[in-house]
Amino acid sequence: MGIRIGIMGYGNLGRGIECALKQNKDMELVAVFTRRNPDTVTILTEGVPVYHVDDAVKMQDKIDVMILCGGSATDLPEQTKMYAQYFNVVDSFDTHARIPEHFEAVDAAAKASGKVGVISVGWDPGMFSLNRLYANAILPNGSDYTFWGKGVSQGHSDAIRRVEGVLDGKQYTIPVDSALEAVRSGKNPELTTRQKHTRECFVVAKEGADKARIEAEIKNMPNYFADYDTTVHFISMDELKANHSGIPHGGFVIRSGKTGWNEENTHIIEYSLKLDSNPEFTSSVIVAYARAAYRLSKEGQSGCKTVFDIAPVYLSAQSPEELRKHLL
Amino acid sequence: MGIRIGIMGYGNLGRGIECALKQNKDMELVAVFTRRNPDTVTILTEGVPVYHVDDAVKMQDKIDVMILCGGSATDLPEQTKMYAQYFNVVDSFDTHARIPEHFEAVDAAAKASGKVGVISVGWDPGMFSLNRLYANAILPNGSDYTFWGKGVSQGHSDAIRRVEGVLDGKQYTIPVDSALEAVRSGKNPELTTRQKHTRECFVVAKEGADKARIEAEIKNMPNYFADYDTTVHFISMDELKANHSGIPHGGFVIRSGKTGWNEENTHIIEYSLKLDSNPEFTSSVIVAYARAAYRLSKEGQSGCKTVFDIAPVYLSAQSPEELRKHLL
Repeated sequence: MGIRIGIMGYGNLGRGIECALKQNKDMELVAVFTRRNPDTVTILTEGVPVYHVDDAVKMQDKIDVMILCGGSATDLPEQTKMYAQYFNVVDSFDTHARIPEHFEAVDAAAKASGKVGVISVGWDPGMFSLNRLYANAILPNGSDYTFWGKGVSQGHSDAIRRVEGVLDGKQYTIPVDSALEAVRSGKNPELTTRQKHTRECFVVAKEGADKARIEAEIKNMPNYFADYDTTVHFISMDELKANHSGIPHGGFVIRSGKTGWNEENTHIIEYSLKLDSNPEFTSSVIVAYARAAYRLSKEGQSGCKTVFDIAPVYLSAQSPEELRKHLL
Repeated sequence: MGIRIGIMGYGNLGRGIECALKQNKDMELVAVFTRRNPDTVTILTEGVPVYHVDDAVKMQDKIDVMILCGGSATDLPEQTKMYAQYFNVVDSFDTHARIPEHFEAVDAAAKASGKVGVISVGWDPGMFSLNRLYANAILPNGSDYTFWGKGVSQGHSDAIRRVEGVLDGKQYTIPVDSALEAVRSGKNPELTTRQKHTRECFVVAKEGADKARIEAEIKNMPNYFADYDTTVHFISMDELKANHSGIPHGGFVIRSGKTGWNEENTHIIEYSLKLDSNPEFTSSVIVAYARAAYRLSKEGQSGCKTVFDIAPVYLSAQSPEELRKHLL
């Protein structure tokens, strides 16, 4: 039997976890938990039951790691510390500013229960964070740059949809090529918000709506668009569905640093992702860290961990000997 | 007092370690050890002594981590296991095929002495290996690609210099742009040696030497050049010194993988380095792992470790709280 996994919440992320588990033969999906009526939820994996969330705690002995697929705004701040009382857990909490308090709450719960809770797993926070840490440790004398995109921002798409007269919309965050090139050149540029990213909106307007007003309202929206060069395209609902229904994303983490007795040499470390599906990639990272959570727990560890605290060897299904032989 | 570091061997790598230590305020250089007459070796750091290698073992109580800067062909297979009897050690052993046996030898010595030995630290093996592991763990269904360059290959430059009639020479390994683009497109191409890299040689010929014969001999040299498209430029010694005395390098680690219930989504993970100085960057990685070796030893760990076995948090001078707050 493989590592027994439970999925808490069955939206895009939960479905992504399910798909990732199919590719990892040392793990198996035991159950999916939902707040909806379980009878109304159909999952992809044959023979795996869907239960109501209220039944989760009863499954304590049947699940090695519970993967929490809720949102960071309201779900995870409550769920992760709660389920860490009963299970090893992994979440993708991504509200950067609130990570320290989330860590403390999960750490207290997981230490009390003797379980492992891995938080903020995914690509940012997650793989991007790891690359920031490695690059900072290697080049202490340097500058960090993170660019996002080209990809769909859910928050900005939601903001568009709240504008009066808008039926639907999608927003792409796009890194500015010339800014990327300046960073890669080692010039250590100081970049403003506007210089780093542009925003491109595809908007379906209601019939008869004032498009000029909608466009102006989007472009001048504080926090979301006002600090960026934003373009707005009005398209039909059919076109939106045909060309903008994917959830691609990605981005770049770059550190530019100097070495040498007189700082005479420049080095560029760059990590980039180009993702067809943001939730499926995030899920794939989470599943690797679920394996780590299981192994750390087996070793007798407990408490809250982040990607910073976990040695890479714990993530791979291959043995340490195989890894040294084939990947080192 | 900071972490007390010894440098064993003072060539390009030893000097790189010395430069890196200058940027890491929690570490201090205690001594440099050389096989030469110490009186003939001048180092950059004021007030730090240079000793003969034979005096190293006496310094056991004054050095927290000994960094071994010898070569992988003959020095490190002997030195690392020997000094692991007395010190926490870090090396940059880079003969990929012999890593398993080197690991076993260092592991036995370090376990017996209760010290930590970190081997094969640098960028390949090292950061490239880490990125191969992370990307493989995240995308188990995919293909790996490693490209090197543009950079100076010491081994190929040495091979050029062994050709009769050659006074001096430098060889650059260059990744083929179209191959990189094919990989980034997610097409999972099967690439031959010739399709991945080209080799460019800058050669200073002896006066009156037969340049056509030299060029043919280089281009047809088995293992080194015969499997590549190679170009040979004859230049003057002055030009070689003016334009080709640096030791730049770099490269790309790319994994292309599929996710989704029917493998419908493609993801590209790319890590790249652009380095003005290969030995200084390698040194910067080693110094971060020397910090880790010290901390692991303080925790009571012992034995051989690689970059796979060490959690990222051990590499940074910042506290776990600061890292979570600022880099996660």
